[in-house]
Amino acid sequence: MTKLLSRIDRPQDLHALSEDELQTVAQEVRELLIDTVGEIGGHFGANLGTCEIAVAVHSLIDSPRDKVLWDVGHQAYPHKVLTGRRDELGTIRRYGGLAPFCSIAESEHDIMGAGHASTSIGYAVGIKEAMLRGGAEDGKVVAVIGDGAMTGGVAFEAVSQAGGLGTPMVVILNDNGMSIAPNVGALSRYMNRVRLDPGLWEAREGVEEKLTKLPAGIGAAFERLGPRFKESVKAFWAPGLWWEELDWAYLGVIDGHDVRAMRRALRTAFEAERPVVIHCATVKGKGFAPAENGGLEGMEKWHAAKPKSIASRRPAPSRPSSPAPPQYTQVFGDAMVRECERDPRVIGITAAMNSGTGLSILQKAMPERYFDVGIAEQQAILFAAGAALTGMRPVAAIYSTFLQRAFDQIVHDVCLQNLPVTFCMDRAGLVGDDGPTHHGVFDIAYLRALPHMTLMAPRDEAMLVHMLHTALHIDGPAALRYPRGAGEGVELPSTPVLIPVGTGEILREGERVALVGYGSGVGKALGAADLLAERGVDVTVADARFAKPLDAPLLAALAAEHELLVTIEEGVLAGGFGSAVWESLSDEGALAPRILRVGLPDRYVTHGAPALLHEEVGFTAERIAERVEAAVLDPRGSFA
Amino acid sequence: MTKLLSRIDRPQDLHALSEDELQTVAQEVRELLIDTVGEIGGHFGANLGTCEIAVAVHSLIDSPRDKVLWDVGHQAYPHKVLTGRRDELGTIRRYGGLAPFCSIAESEHDIMGAGHASTSIGYAVGIKEAMLRGGAEDGKVVAVIGDGAMTGGVAFEAVSQAGGLGTPMVVILNDNGMSIAPNVGALSRYMNRVRLDPGLWEAREGVEEKLTKLPAGIGAAFERLGPRFKESVKAFWAPGLWWEELDWAYLGVIDGHDVRAMRRALRTAFEAERPVVIHCATVKGKGFAPAENGGLEGMEKWHAAKPKSIASRRPAPSRPSSPAPPQYTQVFGDAMVRECERDPRVIGITAAMNSGTGLSILQKAMPERYFDVGIAEQQAILFAAGAALTGMRPVAAIYSTFLQRAFDQIVHDVCLQNLPVTFCMDRAGLVGDDGPTHHGVFDIAYLRALPHMTLMAPRDEAMLVHMLHTALHIDGPAALRYPRGAGEGVELPSTPVLIPVGTGEILREGERVALVGYGSGVGKALGAADLLAERGVDVTVADARFAKPLDAPLLAALAAEHELLVTIEEGVLAGGFGSAVWESLSDEGALAPRILRVGLPDRYVTHGAPALLHEEVGFTAERIAERVEAAVLDPRGSFA
Repeated sequence: MTKLLSRIDRPQDLHALSEDELQTVAQEVRELLIDTVGEIGGHFGANLGTCEIAVAVHSLIDSPRDKVLWDVGHQAYPHKVLTGRRDELGTIRRYGGLAPFCSIAESEHDIMGAGHASTSIGYAVGIKEAMLRGGAEDGKVVAVIGDGAMTGGVAFEAVSQAGGLGTPMVVILNDNGMSIAPNVGALSRYMNRVRLDPGLWEAREGVEEKLTKLPAGIGAAFERLGPRFKESVKAFWAPGLWWEELDWAYLGVIDGHDVRAMRRALRTAFEAERPVVIHCATVKGKGFAPAENGGLEGMEKWHAAKPKSIASRRPAPSRPSSPAPPQYTQVFGDAMVRECERDPRVIGITAAMNSGTGLSILQKAMPERYFDVGIAEQQAILFAAGAALTGMRPVAAIYSTFLQRAFDQIVHDVCLQNLPVTFCMDRAGLVGDDGPTHHGVFDIAYLRALPHMTLMAPRDEAMLVHMLHTALHIDGPAALRYPRGAGEGVELPSTPVLIPVGTGEILREGERVALVGYGSGVGKALGAADLLAERGVDVTVADARFAKPLDAPLLAALAAEHELLVTIEEGVLAGGFGSAVWESLSDEGALAPRILRVGLPDRYVTHGAPALLHEEVGFTAERIAERVEAAVLDPRGSFA
Repeated sequence: MTKLLSRIDRPQDLHALSEDELQTVAQEVRELLIDTVGEIGGHFGANLGTCEIAVAVHSLIDSPRDKVLWDVGHQAYPHKVLTGRRDELGTIRRYGGLAPFCSIAESEHDIMGAGHASTSIGYAVGIKEAMLRGGAEDGKVVAVIGDGAMTGGVAFEAVSQAGGLGTPMVVILNDNGMSIAPNVGALSRYMNRVRLDPGLWEAREGVEEKLTKLPAGIGAAFERLGPRFKESVKAFWAPGLWWEELDWAYLGVIDGHDVRAMRRALRTAFEAERPVVIHCATVKGKGFAPAENGGLEGMEKWHAAKPKSIASRRPAPSRPSSPAPPQYTQVFGDAMVRECERDPRVIGITAAMNSGTGLSILQKAMPERYFDVGIAEQQAILFAAGAALTGMRPVAAIYSTFLQRAFDQIVHDVCLQNLPVTFCMDRAGLVGDDGPTHHGVFDIAYLRALPHMTLMAPRDEAMLVHMLHTALHIDGPAALRYPRGAGEGVELPSTPVLIPVGTGEILREGERVALVGYGSGVGKALGAADLLAERGVDVTVADARFAKPLDAPLLAALAAEHELLVTIEEGVLAGGFGSAVWESLSDEGALAPRILRVGLPDRYVTHGAPALLHEEVGFTAERIAERVEAAVLDPRGSFA
């Protein structure tokens, strides 16, 4: 191995290299990514775009005393390679391997943990201000953020605070014109105007010089008109006025794949005693022809790669061909199109996740009924609330974990107003490789507390179709949660039916023990019942279907007829579905029954294949059966 | 009554008036506000600033077909007066009276409900886009938002979406240079630059004309340089470039107290087929000399007025003089100063609520340890996370209800990273006059679900001092909640002590029944115990102190020694403290005891004096005693 990269064991090893060598190292990082991610899968496009940025930054700073923060973290693979994790890259996203995003537990060079977008600038302000007040040794602070993440309101809040304080820090705006999907909104259009105009590249540096080359007469007029006029003329050459109005210095547009240019910009920025943004243009998928040459569609396809797909230069199909069961995402997207056909009031709203949520299907079929607000979950919900007030039936399709961003809008702008907004939460439960930032495990608890809210979860893809239909007929807020991945393989209904709100369903009659599942918990309940039957215990299985309102009569009957109720949910136990079941029985004045709650523990769960994670936390049919057996055989003992 | 205002029974009655008459009506509205709010108290300063805006808007639109949205709603009193509620203004904020903010249940002219800032633009985009897609009859949509509220990230998300879509709507930026406290951050500084420069007022309208008056030679040069140069020169005269970069048309600066000027701007805006912002300058407290002439401090003092204070021209003291117990807010502020003196790592962070949270005391005493991020709760928490990572011990002082805005930052940026950030939630429980948007009733449920979090609540002001001290010694996130208003009158400790994490305390020993209070629930428990003792039932009273982790051994002992456990909390019952107690007992494998949960119901509670609200929901010692009695006398009956 004669590569320069083989000598980079810590980021400081870059300091000795020439700029030509640094450019080479960046290319070697890129090749390592193509080879490795090609083999194992993972985030791909964004990381190919940040090889030179990572090299340029680390060649000029002393990490971790100086701090570089990677927004979201799915652009941080090059940073991981350069900070001592080169040889472990092949384990990334695997159970026990490197984390899919930055992780403060994994490396002292991962200054902040993240997986949600738009947080790095805010963190950076806090870090730098703390340094200035003696919290830690002073050092440089650099946040690298994509143009897509700039759409998120909290990024703007941070820009405004840093500009207000004059915090000396650097933001590298890594502008590839995309988030996962092509960007939307005026801010990204503004950045596009700038980025796509070659005349504006690095224009700022030459501004003073150009001013002196103005047509005769104008130069003198400037002097008469004063400095503010000069500023406004600068704005013509310098595209960063949006930033400069917020008291940031702007450098750009810089070629983000030119290590030399990036280093020059960074050195200038580090000398400034105020916040500086370096606007650099990069290509998502840089160096990998199928992504780079595939236009916007190519870049979106190659945002993340499936194992082996890169070697073959063909993206894996986004859904398996039949006869495997369809993904919940696909079923939801198809059902949305049919609901929109049925009812002209229905619209679909996504926050920069059109294919991830399945709404890309609606976008294609009925573009006028589809809205992408960008990475702006709060606005997705306000937009939905406004539309609901105006006679529409909006469906906000947002992953469980990302909907957390809009919690206050749900409380204050939807539930308090009792508006008919439907929340469709894909990726509920443990999502797998993306790990703790992406697990959707809190939604039952955080939504159940809210008045007016109806909560339901389908046990299979057919029920998802029915429940979406049902939600659209509720005169108030309603939320559905369903897991990542494939359905159960049941037949899909040709016509959806209305599920009576607040009713559960008995799926299997037995005795002594009743297993009450919610959503993906129902499958586990049925599996456990099979295992228990083999062991001679014939249990009842019910699908609660609704977590709010609960089917109180059904639960009371189950409690009265069984020694033990077992609640099964793929969410945290604290305040979750199991507690709701107990609350219902308690409110009804039923004698408190024995309840065994199965769900997720009070800790953040790591990344890895879902089956491994379910095993780790005991969310398996086998483990449930064991716990039931223990509880029934020893009814006075602990069954925790 | 010969006033013009007496003839305005619905907003359309304004249409027949001349512009001079409209200006008079606005002044009459102002006088009515001074008289009425002076008598009964309420939001004051902001409403005095919007009299002309409300008159100008309603004189040109046909509400509710056309829609005007008032951000926050504490600037909407003039709107209420003009939309049929003139004679009821004297009931505002009182139990059973007009709502303190806009309320869709109260009037068809209140298009959206709100109480939290920064939501109106987002709603407006949704409303207008829904109209364009046939959701309701098309009409004009106007959002009125203060400059302070523009700091909130969701407002920016909405501006970007509307600019991107080109949604034809109007935002009136009601710029008085303040939120409740003076604004902070770069955005407000930008607006200040514009607002405070008389040369920029209404400059836009004359821009083309001014261009032709440029010094000789320049005009011709423009033609050679092309349209973009012309734009950049316009930016010199026209201050709205920040908006124009986001594809909004900008009109301003307009005198927001000049009905004629506002109407001219509105007519121009309504003709545009894209989003337009009207930047108008207003004076907070306009027409009331003590506010208007008191500078920034005067405006802040008169943001809201206490009854009778206006008639006397003297703001009521912000805390009652001794011997009444001090407010929790005051005790917190004083304690923060002492903690900062003790430990150089402690800093205080507020989101535009310096006096409301008590951090104004720290601001005064140790300004370098105090941060105000503006109305930007998400950034408050990211800033705290960054500072915590860098060795500080940040305390984020944010009302319970406003902290909802930062839920994802708490989950993803603090708890997942296990950072030592302390959350101090004033206004926990039912806050009184400000009503359902401001009640802090969900925090126990939404925070309890999060791993690593420690939750505690003081039963009195002395315990608040101890608990703040304790939180600052926990190596992870911790949150305290305490109610609005005065403490219990106990002696404050000269030196705080560390409360062992996860320990409760028995306050009174009895039999048969144990009342377990949390925070303000402890006082109710003690009160109920007194009443029960009079009736011959001598009960145990415990203070749980922590909701997470709970004192499991104490709870198990109480369960074993009593027939009934009663949990008492000032929060929603769904997923709340009572359920946590049951979960703990269940996890311990204790035989499920009988538990009676006392707390707040599964509905949004109205506004009014706290005592009336507590009565309404049964959160009183008397009602608790009655329920306990019923449950103990008839142990098989329902006690729900």
